[in-house]
Parts: sequence; C-alpha cells; structure tokens
Amino acid sequence: MPRRSDSRHRMIEAAMDLLRRRGYHATAFSDVIRESGAPRGSIYFHFPGGKDELVHEAIAAAAVEIEESVALAASRAKDPASFVRIHAGDVGRRLESSGYESGCAIATMVLELAPWSEQLTAEFAQAFERWRAALVSRFEQWGFPTERALADADLVMAGLEGALVLSRAARSLEPFRRTTDALVERIAADMSAEPGTAPPRKRRATTSRRS
Amino acid sequence: MPRRSDSRHRMIEAAMDLLRRRGYHATAFSDVIRESGAPRGSIYFHFPGGKDELVHEAIAAAAVEIEESVALAASRAKDPASFVRIHAGDVGRRLESSGYESGCAIATMVLELAPWSEQLTAEFAQAFERWRAALVSRFEQWGFPTERALADADLVMAGLEGALVLSRAARSLEPFRRTTDALVERIAADMSAEPGTAPPRKRRATTSRRS
Repeated sequence: MPRRSDSRHRMIEAAMDLLRRRGYHATAFSDVIRESGAPRGSIYFHFPGGKDELVHEAIAAAAVEIEESVALAASRAKDPASFVRIHAGDVGRRLESSGYESGCAIATMVLELAPWSEQLTAEFAQAFERWRAALVSRFEQWGFPTERALADADLVMAGLEGALVLSRAARSLEPFRRTTDALVERIAADMSAEPGTAPPRKRRATTSRRS
Repeated sequence: MPRRSDSRHRMIEAAMDLLRRRGYHATAFSDVIRESGAPRGSIYFHFPGGKDELVHEAIAAAAVEIEESVALAASRAKDPASFVRIHAGDVGRRLESSGYESGCAIATMVLELAPWSEQLTAEFAQAFERWRAALVSRFEQWGFPTERALADADLVMAGLEGALVLSRAARSLEPFRRTTDALVERIAADMSAEPGTAPPRKRRATTSRRS
C-alpha cells in the first residue's frame, strides 16, 4: 500500500511541476511517467479517469500548496505589508531558482482551457477561491474590514499572477520585484488609511513587547 | 497585390484571436486557415517560416494593438486614475463580450513557451516593453516622476494580466473589477502623494475650464 500511494503521490507532484512549466497541452502522460519514475502502466491504475483525473489531483495539490504558503508567510510576518512581502518572496524565489520556468501551477491551464472545460474551470475557480479566502482571513485578522481585505486579496493575487507572466517573458525578476514593491506599498498605505480599524492583532503584540 | 496582403492580414488577425483564446499549442495552421477564410496553401506562401513566423507577426500586431489601446484611453482620460480606469475597461470588456475566452494575446504563449523558445521569449519581452513604455510616458506626461511611473506601469500591467487569469477561471468580471478598482485607487493616491510634482498637465486644463 505505501508503495502504491507513493507512486501516485510522485505522479501528482510530477504533473504539477510539468503543468507549472508548460501547461496542459504540452504535458503528456509519458512525461509524467518519466519525471516521476513511476512504473509504466501504473498511471491508468492510479488515474483510471485519464489525464483530467491526474490534472484534477494536481489542481487540488496546488490549492493546498498555496494555502500552506500563505499560512507560512503569515506565521513569519509582523503585519499585512510584511506578510505580502514574504508571500510574494516565496513565489518569486521559485520562479528565479527554476530559471524562469516555474510559475503558477494552474495559470497556464486556465488560459489554455477556461472557459471550455466546464469541470476544470470550476476547479480552477475553486483553487483561486481557496487562495483568496486564505489571504482575506489573514488581512481580517490584522484588522482590515472585509471589503478592504477582499480588494487587497484580489489585487495581490492578480498582481502576483501577472508579475509571473511579465517576469517569465523578461527572464528577469525585475518586473516581479517592482510589482511586489508596489503591492507592499499599497498594503502599507491601507494599514494607516483605515482609521476605524483596531491596530492589527499581531502588531499590537509586537508593540507591547517593545514598550 | 491587395488581395494577397488582405489574406495575409486576415491570417494574422485569426492567429491573434486563436492565440488569445487557447494559446500556442492548441492553435494549428488549419485553424488559422478556417478562421481567416484564407485559401489553403496560402499560409506557406505568406509565412514560409512556418507557424513561428505567423506567431511572430501576431505578437507584433498585439504590441501595436495595446499601444493603440493605451493611446485611445489617454485621449479620453482626464487624469492618470481615469486613464487606468478606461484602459482596464477596454481590456475587461473584450473578456466579458467574448464569454471569458479572449484575454491577452500573448500571456498564454508566455506561460507555455518562455523561457525555452529563445526567439519568441525575446519577442514577448519586447511586446511587454512597448506596453510598459506607452504607460510610463503617459504617467510622466501627467507629472509622475519616472520611478513612480515605472512602478505604476508594472503594477497596472501585472494587475490586468493577473486579473484576466482570475476572471477567466471565475467566468465572471468580478475579480477583474475588484482589481481595477484597487489599481485606480492606488493611482489616485499617487496623484495626491507626489507633492513635488506639478499638477498633471491635462488635469490643469480641465480645472481651468471648470473655474
């Protein structure tokens, strides 16, 4: 049993990596088998629904990954601005260390397949919704009103997704860095421009330790 | 001669449209012929370099199109914030009216092909550079310092590109609208947060007409 689920897991990881680098159309089952080192034939055993079943699992894994990345960034951040800085840094580092190959695990597929593939489009939307909810809940914990948290979450997601496109084309982290700086600046401005909100929970704790 | 260049032009337009909807891998020469109504066989006459020569022309056409869209938005805008609102509105309207099929003409290809295709990646970067330069020069005309103009241009480009991804997945203009609102709000804040800059040229004209 462990061996079976191991190779299933390795195939999902390999699919995620390939989808991130090249998208849906250029990712074949044979590539997934080669990259994962899984035994030939095992792919239809683990994914009887074919390629879209494997892609379905890869989208779900990507959603979990982004939620974990948000949680990790939040745990290391002292306020909303540093939270966005750290989260963006994680995304940008992967892009740079991959030689500008590895962007978002689902964005390429979205642009290739939405809105035609009903099922996959619903799954893309769900994955983005999970990322959005993770961001919104952190912004709210830091005292942002819901409307502001939602607007900032969308701006951060759109900004990072778009910056990945610009930086892949430029083969440079420069557009990604400039976008991140602008996002962080905007979030920092929101922190002081919401006079009705209580000082963010985590910042208050930091402040009291300092005083 | 006019007939020849007409069919060449129609093929480039059809390629742009298909690349915008589905990307590089899912766009075949046969689709371009069908969509453009061009005579079969004419494609190798007009594009002896094959698919990548057609794609090269489509990228160049996309760059011209975005420059024209920026120029049109600038001519209808009264200040940097309304400029970004109008430009984003044009991009968003196309997405919505296409049933969430038609996003950016090159973003899908960037995510499919960069950085592997050296030649096309350089062309993607060049197209984005033209969009960036068009935005920067307008922001500067309205009195933004170069650094600010560059940061805002990258944020707008990244924000719109990313919002197209989110809205295609959501099959709704909602993420695009929220991102646009956040971008416009940010540009409006920049307008008042640059005390060293002269009042924007066009705003001054508007103000003097009003008073």
